[in-house]
Amino acid sequence: MRYQAPANDLRFLLFDVLGADKLHHLEKYADATPDLISAVIDEAGKLAADVIQPTNQVGDREGCQYDPETRSVTTPEAFKEAYRTFVEGGWTALDAPLEFGGQGLPHTLKFVVDEMVCSTNLSLGMYPGLTHGAISALHAHGSETLKQTYLEKLISGEWTGTMCLTEPQCGTDLGMIRTRATPNDDGSYNIEGTKIWITGGEHDLVDNIVHLVLAKLPGAPDTTKGISLFVVPKFLPDSGERNAAFCGGLEHKMGIKGSATCVMNFEGARGWLVGEANDGMRAMFTMMNEARLMVGMQGLGLAEMAYQESLGFARERLQSRSLSGPKNPQGPADPILVHPDVRRMLMRQKVMNEGMRALALFTGHQLDLSVAHPDEEIRESADNLVQLLTPVVKAFLTDEGYNNANWGLQVLGGSGFTQDWPLEQLVRDGRIARIYEGTNGIQAMDLVGRKLALKGGQLVRTLFGVLTGYLKDQPEAPFREELKSAIKSLEQATAWLATNAPKDPEQAGAAATPYLRLMALTVIGYLWSRMAGVARKKLENSEENAPLLEAKQVSAQFYFEKLLPEIQWLLTDIQSGKSSMMAFSDDHWAA
Amino acid sequence: MRYQAPANDLRFLLFDVLGADKLHHLEKYADATPDLISAVIDEAGKLAADVIQPTNQVGDREGCQYDPETRSVTTPEAFKEAYRTFVEGGWTALDAPLEFGGQGLPHTLKFVVDEMVCSTNLSLGMYPGLTHGAISALHAHGSETLKQTYLEKLISGEWTGTMCLTEPQCGTDLGMIRTRATPNDDGSYNIEGTKIWITGGEHDLVDNIVHLVLAKLPGAPDTTKGISLFVVPKFLPDSGERNAAFCGGLEHKMGIKGSATCVMNFEGARGWLVGEANDGMRAMFTMMNEARLMVGMQGLGLAEMAYQESLGFARERLQSRSLSGPKNPQGPADPILVHPDVRRMLMRQKVMNEGMRALALFTGHQLDLSVAHPDEEIRESADNLVQLLTPVVKAFLTDEGYNNANWGLQVLGGSGFTQDWPLEQLVRDGRIARIYEGTNGIQAMDLVGRKLALKGGQLVRTLFGVLTGYLKDQPEAPFREELKSAIKSLEQATAWLATNAPKDPEQAGAAATPYLRLMALTVIGYLWSRMAGVARKKLENSEENAPLLEAKQVSAQFYFEKLLPEIQWLLTDIQSGKSSMMAFSDDHWAA
Repeated sequence: MRYQAPANDLRFLLFDVLGADKLHHLEKYADATPDLISAVIDEAGKLAADVIQPTNQVGDREGCQYDPETRSVTTPEAFKEAYRTFVEGGWTALDAPLEFGGQGLPHTLKFVVDEMVCSTNLSLGMYPGLTHGAISALHAHGSETLKQTYLEKLISGEWTGTMCLTEPQCGTDLGMIRTRATPNDDGSYNIEGTKIWITGGEHDLVDNIVHLVLAKLPGAPDTTKGISLFVVPKFLPDSGERNAAFCGGLEHKMGIKGSATCVMNFEGARGWLVGEANDGMRAMFTMMNEARLMVGMQGLGLAEMAYQESLGFARERLQSRSLSGPKNPQGPADPILVHPDVRRMLMRQKVMNEGMRALALFTGHQLDLSVAHPDEEIRESADNLVQLLTPVVKAFLTDEGYNNANWGLQVLGGSGFTQDWPLEQLVRDGRIARIYEGTNGIQAMDLVGRKLALKGGQLVRTLFGVLTGYLKDQPEAPFREELKSAIKSLEQATAWLATNAPKDPEQAGAAATPYLRLMALTVIGYLWSRMAGVARKKLENSEENAPLLEAKQVSAQFYFEKLLPEIQWLLTDIQSGKSSMMAFSDDHWAA
Repeated sequence: MRYQAPANDLRFLLFDVLGADKLHHLEKYADATPDLISAVIDEAGKLAADVIQPTNQVGDREGCQYDPETRSVTTPEAFKEAYRTFVEGGWTALDAPLEFGGQGLPHTLKFVVDEMVCSTNLSLGMYPGLTHGAISALHAHGSETLKQTYLEKLISGEWTGTMCLTEPQCGTDLGMIRTRATPNDDGSYNIEGTKIWITGGEHDLVDNIVHLVLAKLPGAPDTTKGISLFVVPKFLPDSGERNAAFCGGLEHKMGIKGSATCVMNFEGARGWLVGEANDGMRAMFTMMNEARLMVGMQGLGLAEMAYQESLGFARERLQSRSLSGPKNPQGPADPILVHPDVRRMLMRQKVMNEGMRALALFTGHQLDLSVAHPDEEIRESADNLVQLLTPVVKAFLTDEGYNNANWGLQVLGGSGFTQDWPLEQLVRDGRIARIYEGTNGIQAMDLVGRKLALKGGQLVRTLFGVLTGYLKDQPEAPFREELKSAIKSLEQATAWLATNAPKDPEQAGAAATPYLRLMALTVIGYLWSRMAGVARKKLENSEENAPLLEAKQVSAQFYFEKLLPEIQWLLTDIQSGKSSMMAFSDDHWAA
């Protein structure tokens, strides 16, 4: 089935709901007129369907190959031309800084393109995806020399980048890394150590790979405060000399088999410090926060493709008669789309996907405002929302993206379990998104342990300002009472944390995962109310685009009646606290 | 990690909670003394760990191979000896009828063994698993000649059996089958047609394969009332002649790669009618209901293994410090088991797994009472519960087994996504259990559309009798108020269905999936209250087995505080009805 980019939904969301049609009023985004944004949506949609999608299944079957002789990695054959087309179209440069050859377009557009790429080939999307984080880290923290040396070629896609964080003994707890950096006389460093699970650590799509590597300087403290970031190119840009950064092997994985996940051995490779010594975590978080938002779009992208596939199947597959009388009397049976329980699965996918898209693009829009709005107060408020919602987007969109891909598979029944259909690959590929760039449990801890406390609680107060401001401004808001009650639940949960977490941080840990979900469902509820309200208003004036506008109202009803009520459960869970989780001693677990 | 059969939990559940220690008071099960049951548990546990588990990963890697020349299927090399050991131990005969060489033991024990086999190799377990259904169908519906011809060798495991239902154009809607049976002069039938997704349709573990095939007689009605069941052996038992039942190929699947899933072509094969003409659906349901209970145990079995693996990982993996101060001060970090969010995932697995085990064995025990109790009223009441709970066990244990396997994978983080650990295989293998033997949506429809209406509602009234009887008899029942409120929710949902479904069957379809979940959570709540009550009482008298008894009480608390409250959400969903699900017309879905 050919991928159909959700262009109509994107335009509705960006222009009619979020106000991205006004981005071009900001100096930084003067080029981003609605026409241009619309053209990007359409072109990216075509690229995804025509160039990227055909590489997805073959990439999964072929996988990546490692040659221990040359320590090189071969990517699936079809990836090479697709990557070249992607690069030639300028897609790697979309929101990258103008001064290094980027197009300087709004980040929201990057979100849009990420979704489409991940709908059609997550593995392929990982190569430019990680590069983007490397670009941002170098741009934000690198010296002028480093920027001049690397940025242009990374932005053009001629080179790719990596994030080298994890080691065998540590993933989450980066204070435990053992990779060492010792200064050379010429200002460079000698990097020794082993990194694992390095996406795109070695591959054959480009001539050079630029590793961003966390390592410890001699005498550095044995915590995250002793970590520095280094740039370690595969080939030294000045001399072309092969650097001692070698792939030691590939991981064999459940999915994303076209993405080269490498063990990387730094055998006295030369590296250059990015930013200040012992300040690597800050630069790392520049990459990480970006990567988290991108991973959220991966969850959504896979779920969107699963929805399209399962909808198509449900329309074609004839099985049993409708409970309200035959709908296809000439055929041997009705399409399964008529059955309520099949509709439940499809509605669940559609409504949650569109809600997740709204949450992601709301966050993306705030990111654009945070860097480009002339009013400092608006910039700060937007930045508060982005910081708060980044872990929410990452965790919720990947958990629910995975769930929705599974619902898509379920619509297909036995066919979904066979490799004749793409659903099983979507499920396998999507499983990792709940894990990498910080497991979703870590995202939840970031939210309750860090983001809620930042600026004395200002981030979450900004969110509550948005939510209650909406209720105040919109007395006729659709599903107003349901939304009000959700906001109240989020307030109660936040108050519970404010009371209990300072006395006992384990209470925050116990509440983290349901609290993140509660926040996600509430913010999406706010966005569904807005979408339904805009749709209602537009329909009052014109029949244009009526199917989408009618669908939005029904979808909002489904959301408020069947999905949002989960918050009651989450609040009960949170308020019951840690005691049942922390009571076990060692001998209880396997008793 | 070596599999540890949950023997202590099984003994607690069977003897202390469910009363299976009294099964031997029934004439039919006079041999099933507590000592014998206990010995079966221990021996099955050893078999699973020593013989079956070592075949699991290699079976996944090797898969099944099809040779188009000979139309034969090769199973993974390691399966042959494991299957032989399984057969020689008499495990295929456990609860089979004595008169054909079976051991005639209680069905509950079959449930116990099924769980262990599926924990250690689901693919291998499918071969004897499907055979068991064929035995039951032949025993219940076959002529004396058919029974004499087939049962002994199927029960001994010398031959295996299949269920040939699905065809390319129909799975759920069996009225649409096209396979034809035309009478021969000698009383046999000529079978022509193609069946797909036939587990064990062709393989090399045994000398003969006995297919039970749904087909239509000439002039039979074009509905499920026109279906007949035939036995079609691969080799004719009298002459040894090769019958024209050939494998046309294997499915390539997401998981259970060691299970041969075959396209079967019946090219004028000879078959013999089982039961009456046009009465095949009844015999089919004998197989199907058994298979559904077995598939439920598959979900639980995989989840149990995932729990054991993830608990082991969480105890070994050192990462970050406990939020309440170092717990492993000599080491570089604490085991991740100390972190509340990791404990949330492990508790969720343990508590839900034990609850599912309780639900399954409660149902298994009722099955034994329904066939063996001298009191007709008790037999009928037990049969009511088995009929009602069969779709609940199938759907809930496979949905939650899959969820729990995914939580297990999540505990491992990135390691869980690699093939170096068994978690990703458990997730892949478990995905099919939500689909085969009737998708979980079909189970929910069976519950609300069929089981609730049977005997004028007597099945669900029997269940409510058990639930409210418990509350009445046990004024000190642990978590009594929470349980009472859950039962009330189930009553409200049942009343809602009784009011709305007769007027509009789509309302039943819309409510089906959340209603099944609501029933499962409520019955498991009842069982957790019973388990906690028994544990409390036993602890008052003795310190024996204290870790398990203490753990049961904490686990019940976790269940009532953090899992059962989902029912509020489910009830809201049910009561909001079908309107948001059925409002879309064709142009809304992809608007």
